[in-house]
Amino acid sequence: MGRITARSPVTRISLEGGAQTARRRADTLVVEEPLEIRVGGEPLTVTMRTPGHDIELAAGFLVSEGVIARGGEFRSAIHCGGPGTAAAGDATVGPSLLGIGATENTYNILDVSLAPGVEMPLTDITRNFYTTSSCGVCGTASIDAIEKASRYEVVTDAATVDATLLAGLPDALRAGQTVFEKTGGLHAAAVFDAATGELLVLREDVGRHNAVDKVVGWALLEDRLPLTGTVLQVSGRASFELVQKAVMAGIPILSAVSAPSSLAVELAAASGLTLAGFVRGTSLNVYSRAERVLVGTAVVDQNT
Amino acid sequence: MGRITARSPVTRISLEGGAQTARRRADTLVVEEPLEIRVGGEPLTVTMRTPGHDIELAAGFLVSEGVIARGGEFRSAIHCGGPGTAAAGDATVGPSLLGIGATENTYNILDVSLAPGVEMPLTDITRNFYTTSSCGVCGTASIDAIEKASRYEVVTDAATVDATLLAGLPDALRAGQTVFEKTGGLHAAAVFDAATGELLVLREDVGRHNAVDKVVGWALLEDRLPLTGTVLQVSGRASFELVQKAVMAGIPILSAVSAPSSLAVELAAASGLTLAGFVRGTSLNVYSRAERVLVGTAVVDQNT
Repeated sequence: MGRITARSPVTRISLEGGAQTARRRADTLVVEEPLEIRVGGEPLTVTMRTPGHDIELAAGFLVSEGVIARGGEFRSAIHCGGPGTAAAGDATVGPSLLGIGATENTYNILDVSLAPGVEMPLTDITRNFYTTSSCGVCGTASIDAIEKASRYEVVTDAATVDATLLAGLPDALRAGQTVFEKTGGLHAAAVFDAATGELLVLREDVGRHNAVDKVVGWALLEDRLPLTGTVLQVSGRASFELVQKAVMAGIPILSAVSAPSSLAVELAAASGLTLAGFVRGTSLNVYSRAERVLVGTAVVDQNT
Repeated sequence: MGRITARSPVTRISLEGGAQTARRRADTLVVEEPLEIRVGGEPLTVTMRTPGHDIELAAGFLVSEGVIARGGEFRSAIHCGGPGTAAAGDATVGPSLLGIGATENTYNILDVSLAPGVEMPLTDITRNFYTTSSCGVCGTASIDAIEKASRYEVVTDAATVDATLLAGLPDALRAGQTVFEKTGGLHAAAVFDAATGELLVLREDVGRHNAVDKVVGWALLEDRLPLTGTVLQVSGRASFELVQKAVMAGIPILSAVSAPSSLAVELAAASGLTLAGFVRGTSLNVYSRAERVLVGTAVVDQNT
């Protein structure tokens, strides 16, 4: 596994009290490295990620894109040139999207084997992968596309979550972030049991979409998809792309520390997902399917 | 131009003082919509963005990818089906990556014409565009790729910036963010004169890479590239991709409110860009080319 953090010299400038001071010291940075995901030897996509849990990342990406939805559909994955693969420089290792030789930096190339019968993405679909890795499925009609691609029915999930439990999940997320404490530079995603608040899995990454793919990939590899009865808590904002990933994994409740976008709310409403935003200890907003969030008092209509 | 904000009903749950209350009210969301960028009628990439300044966004994207670097290389851009173009449904409007008809939602498709002689991206380059729009140029060798693609020499830029001025730029950025105030959901990027602190341009977007592309595109269209003697201030973290965009625009100093990644620091050091992070009012960190940041006292070496 690659490094998760790296040391780097930094000049720390302080302006406290009007005095300017500068000190050179060592600092800890979060590592960002490219990962090329291949399927059956064919390059599919490249993402900048924090090394670690690469197989989960690839599995979750394939779930998000609708290629697989069950653990049995994912056969294996190997880092090219890594343990158990052909020798470095082997002719079976083809040209890389990364533009590097197969003998170098092989932990940045992961080759996935799908189960027999699982349809491989076509070239034209591959083109779309590149767009979706950056922006979610595109088009105003993209909401329909998600509906069609999804193998799970989030809309019928009977899960509920206590408002106080939900409001406390960002603190639980932060408490579980080991690398953030050192670098201040990581997004995180975690899946909690909606009824008990039990933490099922937590992953960190420089890319928030990668952090979500890693937790979804964990669920696929544990054969726990769909993630019925759970809450996906994310450290940042709720974009269309993150709602897409929750829906594709069959997660009924998505909770974000910050603001949702318009398209995120539209997709959540259309898919029957409960979307909470600005979830911060003593308050939160619910943008869709609010009846899954249990509060002690009746809802009051207010026109402001 | 499309909408920048949208109204949506929200259930606001408060847990203050142990009492649970829920109120329904209207909330303002930041709009997220896909933009398909075409060059000469050929679909090139799709990005989820906040509508507005789409032409700048497309221009800046093409600068970031090394296709153009001077205002004269960008001839024109039109929203397909919009004013001044062929009628909606015209046969010259080809199939869209968005999967929607050309008669619908035409403000989400922008067609760019480059000046005669500017090389069009090839198909294989187009594939790379999809990867770079999500993750910056990929590969550990990607630093070399940026060096080769860049038309400007950031390393020789003699710009300096006063530490106190630099530390104040995040507040100046926030003060200029009109949409953030309403939605809490937007990234921002702005270019300031390094010597005077004058704000040259500020743009907001749901995607931080889009916000940077918009300011770079503004500079291209104003024929102000390279942006020598300036500071690019961004609202979030400093990833490899943002350093790439600064280098490609000839910006010597990049300042981020939050943490940089390892690869961002490596590219900054290799390119001669000054990279500041955790820039917060009374303190900041400088990760590369610290001599451009002027402080009142000598630098103290400290081993911690």
